[in-house]
Amino acid sequence: MIKYPVQTFEDSAELLAKALGQHDLAGISQALAPLNTSEILEQLERLGTTDRAVAYRTLPKDRAIEVFERLDAALQADLVSGLKEADVAEVFEQLSPDDRVALLDELPATVAHRLISGLDAKERALTSTVLGYPQRSVGRVMSPEFVTTHPMLSVGATFARVRSHLDDAESVYTIPVTDGGRHLVGVVSLRDVLRADESLLVADIMKSPLSVPATEDAEEAARYCADAKILALPIVDAEDRLVGILTVDDALRILEDAETEDAFRSGGTEPLRRPYLATPVGTIVKARVVWLLVLALGATLTVQVIGAFEATLEQQVVLSLFIPLLIGTGGNTGNQAATTITRALALGDVRPRDVFKVFAREVRVGAFLGLLLGSLGFTIASFAFTVPIGLVIGLTLLGVCTMAASIGGLMPLLGKAVKADPAVFSNPFISTFVDAAGLIIYFLIATAVLGL
Amino acid sequence: MIKYPVQTFEDSAELLAKALGQHDLAGISQALAPLNTSEILEQLERLGTTDRAVAYRTLPKDRAIEVFERLDAALQADLVSGLKEADVAEVFEQLSPDDRVALLDELPATVAHRLISGLDAKERALTSTVLGYPQRSVGRVMSPEFVTTHPMLSVGATFARVRSHLDDAESVYTIPVTDGGRHLVGVVSLRDVLRADESLLVADIMKSPLSVPATEDAEEAARYCADAKILALPIVDAEDRLVGILTVDDALRILEDAETEDAFRSGGTEPLRRPYLATPVGTIVKARVVWLLVLALGATLTVQVIGAFEATLEQQVVLSLFIPLLIGTGGNTGNQAATTITRALALGDVRPRDVFKVFAREVRVGAFLGLLLGSLGFTIASFAFTVPIGLVIGLTLLGVCTMAASIGGLMPLLGKAVKADPAVFSNPFISTFVDAAGLIIYFLIATAVLGL
Repeated sequence: MIKYPVQTFEDSAELLAKALGQHDLAGISQALAPLNTSEILEQLERLGTTDRAVAYRTLPKDRAIEVFERLDAALQADLVSGLKEADVAEVFEQLSPDDRVALLDELPATVAHRLISGLDAKERALTSTVLGYPQRSVGRVMSPEFVTTHPMLSVGATFARVRSHLDDAESVYTIPVTDGGRHLVGVVSLRDVLRADESLLVADIMKSPLSVPATEDAEEAARYCADAKILALPIVDAEDRLVGILTVDDALRILEDAETEDAFRSGGTEPLRRPYLATPVGTIVKARVVWLLVLALGATLTVQVIGAFEATLEQQVVLSLFIPLLIGTGGNTGNQAATTITRALALGDVRPRDVFKVFAREVRVGAFLGLLLGSLGFTIASFAFTVPIGLVIGLTLLGVCTMAASIGGLMPLLGKAVKADPAVFSNPFISTFVDAAGLIIYFLIATAVLGL
Repeated sequence: MIKYPVQTFEDSAELLAKALGQHDLAGISQALAPLNTSEILEQLERLGTTDRAVAYRTLPKDRAIEVFERLDAALQADLVSGLKEADVAEVFEQLSPDDRVALLDELPATVAHRLISGLDAKERALTSTVLGYPQRSVGRVMSPEFVTTHPMLSVGATFARVRSHLDDAESVYTIPVTDGGRHLVGVVSLRDVLRADESLLVADIMKSPLSVPATEDAEEAARYCADAKILALPIVDAEDRLVGILTVDDALRILEDAETEDAFRSGGTEPLRRPYLATPVGTIVKARVVWLLVLALGATLTVQVIGAFEATLEQQVVLSLFIPLLIGTGGNTGNQAATTITRALALGDVRPRDVFKVFAREVRVGAFLGLLLGSLGFTIASFAFTVPIGLVIGLTLLGVCTMAASIGGLMPLLGKAVKADPAVFSNPFISTFVDAAGLIIYFLIATAVLGL
């Protein structure tokens, strides 16, 4: 764990909880005073909405703004309703345009309008630029505040430009180079500017720029920025004109959010959007219940499949013993394949066009796993029950694993192809189709082998 | 998708595959020529080991080094065996100390020793510093090359120091401030240095430093760096002396790797460590089979549970119809809770000490979900079958959901407490314990309600 300078995390949490319980404002302030911004954030993210607003209001003004800037937009919006309008307007003005837009997306339209109209003309224009791009696009999360240079400017002049924009540019370490028509033609790092002779031209030292269009999906752009190991990625419009930059710390936040979403959806629940302890129980239930219902309704397919083979089961009740094991193994195999391909898609290792490659691989992987598990299942079940039962179990495992791996591998690709979240698409399909298909394979093999 | 300047990604991939198939070195070189480094990486990561080495060797020297630097350590190690020793030594020298250590960890000891002894004294010393820290600690991934300043130095002198270290410091944008004993006492950003008057002292403008000890877990440190939104995090030894820095792009890579691991393990498979298409089928089978076996062996518990209630099933074969639905719902509910808590632990939203808070929440969430699903199940099953059957299904869903959510929520915390990977720990436990316990709940309720 990270060391805390003055007191442990748990001490602070306890002090804070106690002071909040007693509505002791001085006590709350005291509990937070020795903490740095990161530590205050961690404490606030564990509190319920009301307590969080109370604790936040005890912070000194400068600290309060720093804390506000780093809260998730959903928590910022929670706070806004508990603050005085003048305070909100002040904090809002201090936010960078992209953070402002993230907050606006969380607020009721009337509050959002009031906040925008309270901005000065320049800040309002910057905010509108970002607001103009579609949700989930990189234009929506980029920063429209940047410092640029021109290929025919000298290194010395570029350095002077950087110095004069230290306060308003989001990043001064990566400097996009644009021509007279604002087209992106290159990029120089501040390090290169410092290294080069002052009299050289930017054109002599600039590198060819990486860039993505503002309408690009934010997650794709963030991964591109991350993979390229650059501190800021220039964002351009359809005519290749520079409109903003995506900084690596924003890229990191986007990827974290995307991965939280993926993790939740692979686990069959909607993302919570707020830290766990700060989320009311009712909201957690809501995030899970739809998925559970969809999966449970899908599972009624298995009721029907077993119902169709009820006569077979009546003759051989022993067959029911293996139902959870067999469909469990199918589900696990399907999940393994789906997880692998979902992650490979997220990382850009696999593309929707690779569908045949993936299918060919997963059939082989599934058959291999089926052979291993099937032989084992055959041996164990033959000893514990009878050889024909062993044969049924062994053959079913072979069939189920092959089917489940190939279906599991295809689903995320199919999801991506129809522009759905691969994880959202795969999960219910695997749970229902693979389970039902597995049962059919089982009963068909059983009737054939046992001659029922 | 990202735009490619000259040709589409698929065109390049096709050209490359064709040239590789015909062993046409000029063709390979031609296919890669129009691509930038990121694009070449993407292409190489889709090839098998042999093809990758062939394609890599056609790259011009400068480009080859750039590409090598950005490959994952596992793929670097694959390449090393296909290159001439002199070429390897040259590339190895160009790597930064932390990347060097990552590669060394992948290589056979003899090769590693030879490479280290080929370095000059300074580079060898830097590499040894990093090599001296334990695996998975931040010391092992930090950069030991940094530029520092002193509180009593002027801003102007600090700027001169930065200028003289442009080539050898990993980051010049975050400048740690150390005292005579190398203790970390502050931090200044290059932006602040440029903004401040040259004659001011560093002590006047420095901020209090965030830092983590070099023995800290790399993932914790990376998340700390990410959450603090800083470009570089100073790393200190036990006496608070500066020993390295963790840059945000390294933090990002560490978090990505950690999340890939988590995603794979939640899906019940070991991480592949290489891109999917670059991984042999046998390796994929190996990554999955152990998990499948563990889960299948765990599932034999369900065979025994059903076996114990075989007489009940013989009387009421209809009960077997609901087995997949009921244990499936239990498994889904357990997974939802485990996923939520695993992610909350990874993000630092929940700590092992919060076990009672989590348990209290999950019991309520589970009971709530159970009531909703149970009422629905009761209604549907009462109509489709009989009211007593409906009652059995409804009550079982209530019991199973409550049990599964609370067990599922506790498992990642228990895993973390015993220092296991929360995802690794939760998955098999939920699949086996929750399934078996769910079946027992089901049969007990059935015998009670149906009077069997």
